[in-house]
Amino acid sequence: MCIVGGTGALGFGLALRLGQAGVPIVIGSRDQGRAEEAARRAAADVPAGTFTGLQNESAVREAETVILSVPFRNQVENLANLHHALADGQLLLDATVPLAAAFGGKATRSLGVWQGSAAEQARELLPDGVGVVSAFHTVSAALLSDLDHRLDEDILLCGDSREQKARAAELVQRIDGLRPVDCGRLEMARIVEQLTPLIISINVRNKVRAGIKITGL
Amino acid sequence: MCIVGGTGALGFGLALRLGQAGVPIVIGSRDQGRAEEAARRAAADVPAGTFTGLQNESAVREAETVILSVPFRNQVENLANLHHALADGQLLLDATVPLAAAFGGKATRSLGVWQGSAAEQARELLPDGVGVVSAFHTVSAALLSDLDHRLDEDILLCGDSREQKARAAELVQRIDGLRPVDCGRLEMARIVEQLTPLIISINVRNKVRAGIKITGL
Repeated sequence: MCIVGGTGALGFGLALRLGQAGVPIVIGSRDQGRAEEAARRAAADVPAGTFTGLQNESAVREAETVILSVPFRNQVENLANLHHALADGQLLLDATVPLAAAFGGKATRSLGVWQGSAAEQARELLPDGVGVVSAFHTVSAALLSDLDHRLDEDILLCGDSREQKARAAELVQRIDGLRPVDCGRLEMARIVEQLTPLIISINVRNKVRAGIKITGL
Repeated sequence: MCIVGGTGALGFGLALRLGQAGVPIVIGSRDQGRAEEAARRAAADVPAGTFTGLQNESAVREAETVILSVPFRNQVENLANLHHALADGQLLLDATVPLAAAFGGKATRSLGVWQGSAAEQARELLPDGVGVVSAFHTVSAALLSDLDHRLDEDILLCGDSREQKARAAELVQRIDGLRPVDCGRLEMARIVEQLTPLIISINVRNKVRAGIKITGL
């Protein structure tokens, strides 16, 4: 599997945890050198893992599943580049957050996206045969990267295909302490993407690294 | 304390739980008869509690804290009526959810509110001296009313005054199994009010009565 934006904090944390779980990881970056450097750092943190660094378009080619974990201001450019690299049957897990901070605003506020959410923007910009599931908006990048930390929280999944959400859920479950929760259709990403600024606000007020767990499941 | 809309499912559930915790409850309704009937039902469910039914404007007069728990389509009318009944120093806990279902849409979708959220609409329509804190958007009305059910979840609070949020938190803590979480300023209600349609979507997909817990606190 491949993580586009795997050099960033969230992408790198996911790379470590999935690598630790035995999933071979390709870290993608716009810059081949930075990708290779991140793969070396990941291998140092998780010696048993398999990490490769590649330029984004090459990185995604062999991957069944691609996590897109890039800043909101780079999402459209990345999707445009991936449009021709991705093929039918591949699954994109979109972790993009339209934070107002992307354009100098507060990290506790979000931007309006014409399509409704960053995930729906991804849906519009990718070929129909590529699946899109929204995921990973509430887990702390710092806690993912801190391999001594025992995770115990939920990953909220939104998508229009049950089969694609099941594939996403399977991947999430590879990471100890993360539980996937089906939140409904892709349009629900309009709400779930807002949970990042909410969690940032909770973190600031309470000096914590918060996450979310759904009760009653 | 007073619950405007205490004849509705969420308001009635909160009345039962707070009454059980020893808080004297005034149930407010537009209709005095319906308020009295709800108070009788509450007293039957919680014989040790103190419940009074009154017409809304009379109901709020002696209350330090007022929970507003009415359908979105009635919120403005209620706030207009409460404007002159509420006085400086009183605290309104707004539980309104701008569900699209209010106007025939889906319960998994929300409406845009000009002020940003129902809570900010309340802030605009009430006198400055009346405090406003947003609360109670993620707890199931059915589970509140099921007194055999052990609650174990969080109540997310948004407000511009730490002192007002502390008063709200104190009230929340009277109910066994509910933990208040400070989510930041009142504008964060734009996000928290969206959690109701999210939870409804999770409930539908997973056949549960979900709630939310913040991890890491």
